[in-house]
Amino acid sequence: MNNGTGVLMQEMVQTIATLLQEQRWEELKGLLAPKNPNDLAILFADFPPPERALLFRLLEKRPAVEVFESLPVEEQQELLGSFKTEQLREIVEHMSPDDRAELLDELPAKVAKRLLSLLTPEERQATALLLGYEENTAGRIMTTEYIDLKSFVTVAEALKKIRRVGLDKETVYYCYVIDESRHLIGAVSLRQLVLADPETKVAELMETDVISASTNEDQEEAAHKIQRYDLLALPVVDREKRLVGIITHDDIIDIIQEEATEDIYRLGAVEMPEQSYFKARVLAVAGNRVGWLLLLLLTNTFTGNIILHYSNLLQSVIALAAFVPLLTGSGGNIGSQTSTVFVRGLALKEVTYRNALGLLLREVAVGLLLGSFLGVLVIFWAYWLQGNWVVSIAVGLSLVLISTLATFFGGFWPLVFKRFGLDPAMVSAPFISTMVDVLGALTYFQVARFILSFL
Amino acid sequence: MNNGTGVLMQEMVQTIATLLQEQRWEELKGLLAPKNPNDLAILFADFPPPERALLFRLLEKRPAVEVFESLPVEEQQELLGSFKTEQLREIVEHMSPDDRAELLDELPAKVAKRLLSLLTPEERQATALLLGYEENTAGRIMTTEYIDLKSFVTVAEALKKIRRVGLDKETVYYCYVIDESRHLIGAVSLRQLVLADPETKVAELMETDVISASTNEDQEEAAHKIQRYDLLALPVVDREKRLVGIITHDDIIDIIQEEATEDIYRLGAVEMPEQSYFKARVLAVAGNRVGWLLLLLLTNTFTGNIILHYSNLLQSVIALAAFVPLLTGSGGNIGSQTSTVFVRGLALKEVTYRNALGLLLREVAVGLLLGSFLGVLVIFWAYWLQGNWVVSIAVGLSLVLISTLATFFGGFWPLVFKRFGLDPAMVSAPFISTMVDVLGALTYFQVARFILSFL
Repeated sequence: MNNGTGVLMQEMVQTIATLLQEQRWEELKGLLAPKNPNDLAILFADFPPPERALLFRLLEKRPAVEVFESLPVEEQQELLGSFKTEQLREIVEHMSPDDRAELLDELPAKVAKRLLSLLTPEERQATALLLGYEENTAGRIMTTEYIDLKSFVTVAEALKKIRRVGLDKETVYYCYVIDESRHLIGAVSLRQLVLADPETKVAELMETDVISASTNEDQEEAAHKIQRYDLLALPVVDREKRLVGIITHDDIIDIIQEEATEDIYRLGAVEMPEQSYFKARVLAVAGNRVGWLLLLLLTNTFTGNIILHYSNLLQSVIALAAFVPLLTGSGGNIGSQTSTVFVRGLALKEVTYRNALGLLLREVAVGLLLGSFLGVLVIFWAYWLQGNWVVSIAVGLSLVLISTLATFFGGFWPLVFKRFGLDPAMVSAPFISTMVDVLGALTYFQVARFILSFL
Repeated sequence: MNNGTGVLMQEMVQTIATLLQEQRWEELKGLLAPKNPNDLAILFADFPPPERALLFRLLEKRPAVEVFESLPVEEQQELLGSFKTEQLREIVEHMSPDDRAELLDELPAKVAKRLLSLLTPEERQATALLLGYEENTAGRIMTTEYIDLKSFVTVAEALKKIRRVGLDKETVYYCYVIDESRHLIGAVSLRQLVLADPETKVAELMETDVISASTNEDQEEAAHKIQRYDLLALPVVDREKRLVGIITHDDIIDIIQEEATEDIYRLGAVEMPEQSYFKARVLAVAGNRVGWLLLLLLTNTFTGNIILHYSNLLQSVIALAAFVPLLTGSGGNIGSQTSTVFVRGLALKEVTYRNALGLLLREVAVGLLLGSFLGVLVIFWAYWLQGNWVVSIAVGLSLVLISTLATFFGGFWPLVFKRFGLDPAMVSAPFISTMVDVLGALTYFQVARFILSFL
């Protein structure tokens, strides 16, 4: 039984390294053969490319292809150079069309062409079809290895076909029913086929209300459908509603993780890199981040100017300066709490155009409540720290106003971004904090001046 | 074909509302019957509880159960009160054990007892088993509706059993092989069974290296296994390695989404609420957020004290004050970029104890690089704004230092939290910004004083 813990992995890596060094190939073969390909992919990641290529040569064709498929695209690329042409052909020929398309897409045109030339005409055609669709669409991530049935066949005939062609297909658990022009007209699950009377016609059994995606649909939409309807696979149709491929549930989990990562990065004001963040070079990482920083830095200058603008006020009541960070900081925190919740709510479709206004109002009520509670607390806290009632009241009052403003803008901006077709996750915590800094400073000094005008 | 767009949904809601008002029950029945239960659940959400209960009564038993299962637990609870006992028994009796356990767990003890008393002894036992495990464990989310086989049966016999019991099981695509004491000894897929010769013994066909979870394992770990090994279902075993249930792939997608939401909320300094954030009351929402705010507010007081501590310096060179927000703001932004990336990297196991130190050093290098670039830029920018070289150089130099410190702490804290068994996502953007504020202000004034000491 495999529990895949880190400690066992660590021991395995040690053993493999020793066997490699001592060139005990047969023992290595015996050690690797019974392992799960997904475990092997993780094990292999611990070895430098030349040794990794060596390890690959010790695997049988089928596990070699599976291990290769489960590597990230950048590691696949690194490896390609170390393979001999025959091994290369074997691996690339047997990859699923969707994994192959992803790899070819990232390669330099020349290398991609060479690889394509190694494939059989059928495999080449399947790959070219996928490469014709834009990145992040359903067409690009689908596989062409599905089972199709005609509606007039019987269950027994359908099962016979599955037995004949099933070995090469990505899933046999759903079969799609097409008419003479390959239009998708129904779907039938292996479960239904197995449970049904062998003489029943597929037409009687199939569901006709099939959930499908179109080739140019966003992959996130496709993932959403699989999740919402608990599907194992989603058929993909072209503009004429002809079946061209399927997307399977395991691809969807990766997409959901990837989309969550993208949202998390954006919320932290980091652009999603093309390859894994942790493989990128220092300069690439810095480049990925500098854009937002420059913009925010510029905005921060406004806050500075506001402070300077009130320098006379500050010089006469220097105690006021002590509470600027508290006010701008709290405002930023409250605002980014709200924006976080709204951005995630929009991504999970819990916030819709229909309920947005109500939720925004509720958020502002929360801001008012939080601000009032913290404001009262801060009045006493500030008085205890500085012993100045005027300053204390100015701080408390400003906190109420800033907190209300912050919740408003924290909910408002993600909605506006969404409305104009931008990713709401671009309303990051830094974005909201910086914006609220400007408003917070302005509010604070105006309130202080107002209170002082009565004295 | 169903494309599930919002516009069509909107029209449906209108039609249903009209039919409800005019009490045209037969037409409503005909309208609802062919719909997908997942679509119905979303449609029903638009109606108040009394009307929703009415709509339920118009559904056949099976779709009614499915719609009920796909509602959030809090909506299930609201509805329970509006059902008659017989309808209640029918729905709860036919829910899957895992969905039922989740519902019962949230109900007041008295209501839960009454519901349990309506069940058949077998169903009651299955539910009690699940309720015995802690929340968020594999035992709690598993279902007991799986197919088990003995290793000595033939493929034909196995298929016969699947045909006999398959209708009531959550999945028929994987069958688990057990010995006389119910120990899990293998797994066989329906695909293998269908493709194999009917006379083959299951023992020859089954995989013996079965990936499994134990009942008390964290649900996130179980999700990780399903994702890593591309499984449709994961068997769950008790301490004695006896098979007690399975977790299916569709539950996993929900867990992955839920875990991502929790991380996103924490990164925004919002605690994950028990029920949906958007259904909670204003007071509950405010309560969920006030903890972090109070802590951060307290920390901000330090920053204020630092500013006051240097008030003589500030009064002599008032231009220094203008750049405090720029420095603390940029520091916070750079730091939260780093913490975001580290928190997500830890969640996806891209950051491990093995590579953590190297990645942290790389991060500091990125900080130094970003700081130097922005620092040089800011020297000229500050001079252009204020015309004071001393201030400009102090700002530029501080930015280099602050940026380096910020990247260090942005990577350091998530690792420390992880090491001590805390959720790294608690290192939110507000947490890092507030911490960097203190350091930033201190660094800036020290650097300025140092430069001024030469004049």
